[in-house]
Amino acid sequence: MEIELAKSYGFCFGVKRAIKKAEQIKDAATIGPLIHNNEEITRLWKNYNVKTLENIDELKDEKKAIIRTHGITKQDLDDLRKKDIEIFDATCPFVTKPQKICEQMSNEGYEVVIFGDENHPEVKGVRSYVSTKAYVILDEKELLDIKLPSKIAVVSQTTKKVEKFMEIVNFLMLKVKEVRVFNTICDATFKNQEAINELAKKSDVMVIVGGKNSANTKQLFLIAKNYCQDSYLIENEKEIQKEWFKGKEKCGISAGASTPDWVINLVLEKIKEYA
Amino acid sequence: MEIELAKSYGFCFGVKRAIKKAEQIKDAATIGPLIHNNEEITRLWKNYNVKTLENIDELKDEKKAIIRTHGITKQDLDDLRKKDIEIFDATCPFVTKPQKICEQMSNEGYEVVIFGDENHPEVKGVRSYVSTKAYVILDEKELLDIKLPSKIAVVSQTTKKVEKFMEIVNFLMLKVKEVRVFNTICDATFKNQEAINELAKKSDVMVIVGGKNSANTKQLFLIAKNYCQDSYLIENEKEIQKEWFKGKEKCGISAGASTPDWVINLVLEKIKEYA
Repeated sequence: MEIELAKSYGFCFGVKRAIKKAEQIKDAATIGPLIHNNEEITRLWKNYNVKTLENIDELKDEKKAIIRTHGITKQDLDDLRKKDIEIFDATCPFVTKPQKICEQMSNEGYEVVIFGDENHPEVKGVRSYVSTKAYVILDEKELLDIKLPSKIAVVSQTTKKVEKFMEIVNFLMLKVKEVRVFNTICDATFKNQEAINELAKKSDVMVIVGGKNSANTKQLFLIAKNYCQDSYLIENEKEIQKEWFKGKEKCGISAGASTPDWVINLVLEKIKEYA
Repeated sequence: MEIELAKSYGFCFGVKRAIKKAEQIKDAATIGPLIHNNEEITRLWKNYNVKTLENIDELKDEKKAIIRTHGITKQDLDDLRKKDIEIFDATCPFVTKPQKICEQMSNEGYEVVIFGDENHPEVKGVRSYVSTKAYVILDEKELLDIKLPSKIAVVSQTTKKVEKFMEIVNFLMLKVKEVRVFNTICDATFKNQEAINELAKKSDVMVIVGGKNSANTKQLFLIAKNYCQDSYLIENEKEIQKEWFKGKEKCGISAGASTPDWVINLVLEKIKEYA
């Protein structure tokens, strides 16, 4: 069985940057997981004493707080600033961007459509910067019965599929006189998605490595599944099953933007055993 | 043979308004045809002494000038203001809008994509309000090899098809970080297009009445042709041929936004003779 890695996969700029920061800062707490990958979070905790708290209220005598790659809400940031703690910002710059856009658009009087999952921490953070009205949607149909203003701004969660974002914009163009479109889908997401698209088409089994709480990893999995029925989403090599590769000719591998290389390598070694 | 008129057709708000103005003002000159319909232009000339000049240089001792529904360029307007002539503005408000948007976007530093025919007087007028850089295109492919700025504004000629406008916006979303979309396609155009879409699907012959220099009429003709092979574009009843209706069961009729009712009625009477 031939094994091929996607042309673009794994760690993105924002994740690399955050991990480097965490390793340098050490002995710190993050509010929510720094990145959506349990393997790496455990490594940072064991090797660098960077622990993950559920929320700000769990902070006790910590001296250093790191803001996760997905960002936090404006309110949480304000609360954090009131505490006697040093703050390090590891928010991915691609996430800071829609936050700033939401703030600016609100100042200019625009209401904002956010294409994203309302329960995702990135979206919660971005939404908190809208001081007018925010519409968080995953599908344009959610806006069907809503009376929209005559001008509106649109941003996207950084890890969403651009095709769906286009559908939302197309829908808005018919309803609203001015649509201010900010394509905030990050390049890494876009490249990883394009690469898995290509690879899945020519593979008969696909393995996607990444956190099951990672939006961009799940997105990669869905794209793979679309072209290759036998696609699997795993967090680590222990989940791999020998039967997946029986009679298969080509195995494609990709990984989410928060999946470290050392996890991908362990997966790769395991699959080679079954090739 | 059954005859059915489209649910929405003919004179739009801007055209009605301009004709009413011309009839009231009388003894005036327009720079370029007031509307794109020769029959009506002739009527206004014969009954109200409103004559059509090719350009501003043709003005001699006229005391009143009427600005055509499609608008004129900023330069022509400036030149006109320097002359000893009373100016009446019959520019359709739906056309004034993209002009104003182009001016405002230029002031805010945006370059502007104009979806439209660069030779159409409306587009020439709208373009003249861009003081940064304007890209006048009919297809997104025209932008393929162009290095675009990171933010751009988009407007449309009022009579274009919204589906193509969407394709252009979708293309820009992938190339540019901020796309400021102004859907300036006018409601009348949109409604006439929707109605002919519906009617052409259930007709086996279609007759579209309107000026052959009228962009919105040509657009209606193209939509009809798409669903009904035997579609005909005529300016008046004299062009109708008996053979078009032989063995046909349903004739659909529509008319451009600049086609007066009296012309449509003459056409209708003629077709009834052949039904």
